[in-house]
Amino acid sequence: MIVVMKHGATEEMIQRTARRIEELGLKAHIIQGTERTVIAAIGDERGKEELAACEDVEQVLPILAPYKIASRETKPEPTVIQVRELVIGGGRIGVIAGPCSVESETQIIDAARKVKAGGATALRGGAFKPRTSPYAFQGMQEEGLRLLSAAREATGLPVVTEVMTPHHVELVTRYADVLQIGARNMQNYHLLAAVGEIRKPVLLKRGLSATMEEFLLAAEYILDRGNHQVILCERGIRTFETHTRFTLPLASVPYLKERTHLPVVVDPSHGTGIASLVAPMCAASVACGADGLIIEVHPDPKKSMSDASQTISPEAFAAAMTQCRLIAHALGTQLG
Amino acid sequence: MIVVMKHGATEEMIQRTARRIEELGLKAHIIQGTERTVIAAIGDERGKEELAACEDVEQVLPILAPYKIASRETKPEPTVIQVRELVIGGGRIGVIAGPCSVESETQIIDAARKVKAGGATALRGGAFKPRTSPYAFQGMQEEGLRLLSAAREATGLPVVTEVMTPHHVELVTRYADVLQIGARNMQNYHLLAAVGEIRKPVLLKRGLSATMEEFLLAAEYILDRGNHQVILCERGIRTFETHTRFTLPLASVPYLKERTHLPVVVDPSHGTGIASLVAPMCAASVACGADGLIIEVHPDPKKSMSDASQTISPEAFAAAMTQCRLIAHALGTQLG
Amino acid sequence: MIVVMKHGATEEMIQRTARRIEELGLKAHIIQGTERTVIAAIGDERGKEELAACEDVEQVLPILAPYKIASRETKPEPTVIQVRELVIGGGRIGVIAGPCSVESETQIIDAARKVKAGGATALRGGAFKPRTSPYAFQGMQEEGLRLLSAAREATGLPVVTEVMTPHHVELVTRYADVLQIGARNMQNYHLLAAVGEIRKPVLLKRGLSATMEEFLLAAEYILDRGNHQVILCERGIRTFETHTRFTLPLASVPYLKERTHLPVVVDPSHGTGIASLVAPMCAASVACGADGLIIEVHPDPKKSMSDASQTISPEAFAAAMTQCRLIAHALGTQLG
Amino acid sequence: MIVVMKHGATEEMIQRTARRIEELGLKAHIIQGTERTVIAAIGDERGKEELAACEDVEQVLPILAPYKIASRETKPEPTVIQVRELVIGGGRIGVIAGPCSVESETQIIDAARKVKAGGATALRGGAFKPRTSPYAFQGMQEEGLRLLSAAREATGLPVVTEVMTPHHVELVTRYADVLQIGARNMQNYHLLAAVGEIRKPVLLKRGLSATMEEFLLAAEYILDRGNHQVILCERGIRTFETHTRFTLPLASVPYLKERTHLPVVVDPSHGTGIASLVAPMCAASVACGADGLIIEVHPDPKKSMSDASQTISPEAFAAAMTQCRLIAHALGTQLG
Repeated sequence: MIVVMKHGATEEMIQRTARRIEELGLKAHIIQGTERTVIAAIGDERGKEELAACEDVEQVLPILAPYKIASRETKPEPTVIQVRELVIGGGRIGVIAGPCSVESETQIIDAARKVKAGGATALRGGAFKPRTSPYAFQGMQEEGLRLLSAAREATGLPVVTEVMTPHHVELVTRYADVLQIGARNMQNYHLLAAVGEIRKPVLLKRGLSATMEEFLLAAEYILDRGNHQVILCERGIRTFETHTRFTLPLASVPYLKERTHLPVVVDPSHGTGIASLVAPMCAASVACGADGLIIEVHPDPKKSMSDASQTISPEAFAAAMTQCRLIAHALGTQLG
Repeated sequence: MIVVMKHGATEEMIQRTARRIEELGLKAHIIQGTERTVIAAIGDERGKEELAACEDVEQVLPILAPYKIASRETKPEPTVIQVRELVIGGGRIGVIAGPCSVESETQIIDAARKVKAGGATALRGGAFKPRTSPYAFQGMQEEGLRLLSAAREATGLPVVTEVMTPHHVELVTRYADVLQIGARNMQNYHLLAAVGEIRKPVLLKRGLSATMEEFLLAAEYILDRGNHQVILCERGIRTFETHTRFTLPLASVPYLKERTHLPVVVDPSHGTGIASLVAPMCAASVACGADGLIIEVHPDPKKSMSDASQTISPEAFAAAMTQCRLIAHALGTQLG
Repeated sequence: MIVVMKHGATEEMIQRTARRIEELGLKAHIIQGTERTVIAAIGDERGKEELAACEDVEQVLPILAPYKIASRETKPEPTVIQVRELVIGGGRIGVIAGPCSVESETQIIDAARKVKAGGATALRGGAFKPRTSPYAFQGMQEEGLRLLSAAREATGLPVVTEVMTPHHVELVTRYADVLQIGARNMQNYHLLAAVGEIRKPVLLKRGLSATMEEFLLAAEYILDRGNHQVILCERGIRTFETHTRFTLPLASVPYLKERTHLPVVVDPSHGTGIASLVAPMCAASVACGADGLIIEVHPDPKKSMSDASQTISPEAFAAAMTQCRLIAHALGTQLG
Repeated sequence: MIVVMKHGATEEMIQRTARRIEELGLKAHIIQGTERTVIAAIGDERGKEELAACEDVEQVLPILAPYKIASRETKPEPTVIQVRELVIGGGRIGVIAGPCSVESETQIIDAARKVKAGGATALRGGAFKPRTSPYAFQGMQEEGLRLLSAAREATGLPVVTEVMTPHHVELVTRYADVLQIGARNMQNYHLLAAVGEIRKPVLLKRGLSATMEEFLLAAEYILDRGNHQVILCERGIRTFETHTRFTLPLASVPYLKERTHLPVVVDPSHGTGIASLVAPMCAASVACGADGLIIEVHPDPKKSMSDASQTISPEAFAAAMTQCRLIAHALGTQLG
């Protein structure tokens, strides 16, 4: 890291700071600039906070990325996730679709059949639902998991569903093919550690206000426990924009893919919150290199018990996938 | 709620929407405007999402606040929290101070004595630490809780400490006087439910990108389980500003106090991330009506194992409290 | 608009507010809800601020969009802008490319030839440069405009260039084919009025923190003066994200196109600030329905006197356009 | 500045970059780290963008603040602005109050008398109004300036009023004592240059999404032209928060005062947009060291032709000033 001394720092202050850097086990390299002195601390980034707190120091500039296992420098070849017919990464674009919540056996099996017909390679559906209000529908819980299994039986589609608390990891792992960590739990470190212990893929959603570094460090929590099957999911961030539910910053897709070997999927349903914007954002995601899509589709969107305004019909879904398939084909990748 | 029909909606569309509103158990009241027709749906806000998803509907405007127990309409008189010498609310400003992390017995007892001397009425200190990186110091865990108890023994100060996962609620409740829910866990609903079951005060930090409504609904999760001792804590939000660690939006203090009976405290340490800005923000918080402060103070700030750059010394703390006491006195409130 | 009365408003307060609405020339329609009384004020949205300021009123909810001429309700068919070979809108995707700044005759003519060869249908280049620092290069001014004309002579490409102040509108109009209003000037109302008086197309960039409504109202300033050739340009917004220079919220493209007949182009160079992200964001923009692209291309990007890190080479530009052409073809639109 | 080479940069790449740095007239100092090589470029920050664009370079970290004249390093003693009875800076807190817009002679003289009685030391009032919509009231223009002069005659209060375009600078300077640059014009560089040529104080409002560095660089445009009487005004920023009109980040007050000698005032009216929050935010501003306040006060707030919901009455203003005076007194500063 680079330690920038305050304007007017005396030789004594500089020497004291350099000594502290050496005590931390790093090599201190003093550079006298025209207006400022900086000290390069060679080794790693330990002691960063302590040095930043020294009164003689103006700022400390880190040089190294703090994530290791997630980094493309560590593993240059892309990670490919495969579960049944779902393939995510390596030029294959996975399509995860289904209702926001599991509501009944008829609904989820109907949804599964229709999204499969429309081009999905996996089924999504919430059994445990994180809801802003304690008074809103919280999901069918374990019964929902059972219905998801039934839908898998009926269609062969692998199941992606959310786990909200460490205590449920074992239960959800029994039923699900891919465990989802929601945006509000991206920094629920006990939950990240718990899914790091299992050996099924984890779809990790970006937090509403998470930086790229925080997002990759959240993945690192899972990877560090030995679970290397992590799928990153861009689902939109919170900004001053209110015309859409969130702001979907698609440049994060190519940005992440330059830095990590992990696959990156996009959730245009939460990313926009508006049904009519889902298809264009699916197309844009495929065009900029996303490894997958996760989309809210309900047999009867208006009757959806949650997220109704961002849910699309099976017909709209099929049309969007047809368009995405053409774009993928034009770019030499494969949808589904 | 108010249902705004799309431009050019036909009489049939309007009648169909009105029928749907009546089916939901609400009374539909059609108002023909000059350019738009709107339907007032009288009763409560059920079916909001479904109606918003109708293709004939442009938007649905909610009228009622979705939180009930937290609302000042439900309980006009302010809630006062009292634990030992800590009083928060009703004109008394609680002062919670101490190190970011518990590091050793000497450190925490030394810190407790010094913050007490400087004017603190409670001790803060992290035993379980949520850290962005899996490679950072994660706290002393249960041993940290024991040392906090020892510091309480030594000084009489009640202890405020964070709980990160439902599984630890029982353990932390055994040692702590006030349980803190961190900003990253503000929407960890299983954790909110778990602390809703205990009968000790909970200090709930605002999420980094939480709206006021989401913040009050998070409190509602705790209140709804029967724990009525909730303290709201403004700790700064994430915005485009990078000169400070977060942006501290103090207008939330009077805004919240107009809407809820719960007390509101401010965390200027995380809210700014810069030690030299902590004292001015303490003064500003007291001036705009905060019911308390929570401040990171370490016997030797540079040696702090976490958050070093935002931690102040016991001397700086005592000076800041002297200034706050003068302001509180001028305004007819009481610090400490 | 809908006027929501405060909780507990008395009959007298309600009648007084209703009378004020009638005095404003609107029709007041009182609706007694279960928990709140609301008054529908029928007519237009006049008096909104005054009513919101009444102490008996909780909030005022507007129903109508405040822009008129820009609205798709006013003019359902899309506006198509055509200048020489540049066509923007109606299924044709215009490609505006060139250096950030005009630097010399050789540079701008070389750039024009190369972007034309790569697929551009217009040349961009700044003669007047808005720069954050007074010490940075401010552009070649009128000499730059002359060189742009020379480049048009040499290649036939129409010229898009920025005007920064009302005083220069006449001058820039003499040389340019399309006048650009920069993001920092989106609410420079005297400048908007001045370009509203001319009869050449105006490319209006979205402000860094402008809402969709503010963006369309800025366009309305120009339209209202009689200049109907307005091109909207999404160029990224300021959010908490710092890994890219700005956040490029592509959902604004389909969102705007649902609401306005004006064409929408995307600037992926400023929108990301990183050269390697420009091509993926071009592809995404075409995929989600953008009517055009505006891209920074320099014969020797590293030597660019401004915006070097987001500028791409003519070779990278040509490759990106090849990809975009395939996507446009797949979607039934036409690039260039 | 510090040039960070890409991971795996070869000796040849490093030498090539170092040569380029020397060609720019800087001294290159190569530091071989454990995982990365960095090059310290000693001298100033020229060529920053070019170096950042080199393909062998990962990033360039600037070391020096880009503003010079505004910096406290250049002029350690605080700048004090004095016009008639208005004193801003050096322990004196100026109080600028008045209506959003000048509406009539009676209104502005009445307002001036009442704010003076309540403690104001200057009168604010808009003659030229920047309005989001072309259909909103745009101000009384020159007639408004004449009425402001009349109010100064009647009360002795100096006048603060906005100038929106370079063409009006001469006119507004004739009538006003302090010229205000609005938030939307903070980066209207031609306007900044124009007010840099006059010799009256300029109150520069922070842009809605301006960083501290951009804010100080905007001031630098004015200072660089020779006008050293610049007052910085924090008026709130645009964030995801919608419960207030803007987010008022008061930590910017002490942050700016550490870095610049220019005085800093706060606008709690625009900063919150809600009348009931103005008084608490005035108190907080004084408590954290603001050098002044600028507040919207109208003889009859509900009748205000603009910004009605954030305007307070003369009585509320007088009460707020009484509270602020007590706080200032407690802190050893002086209000008014």
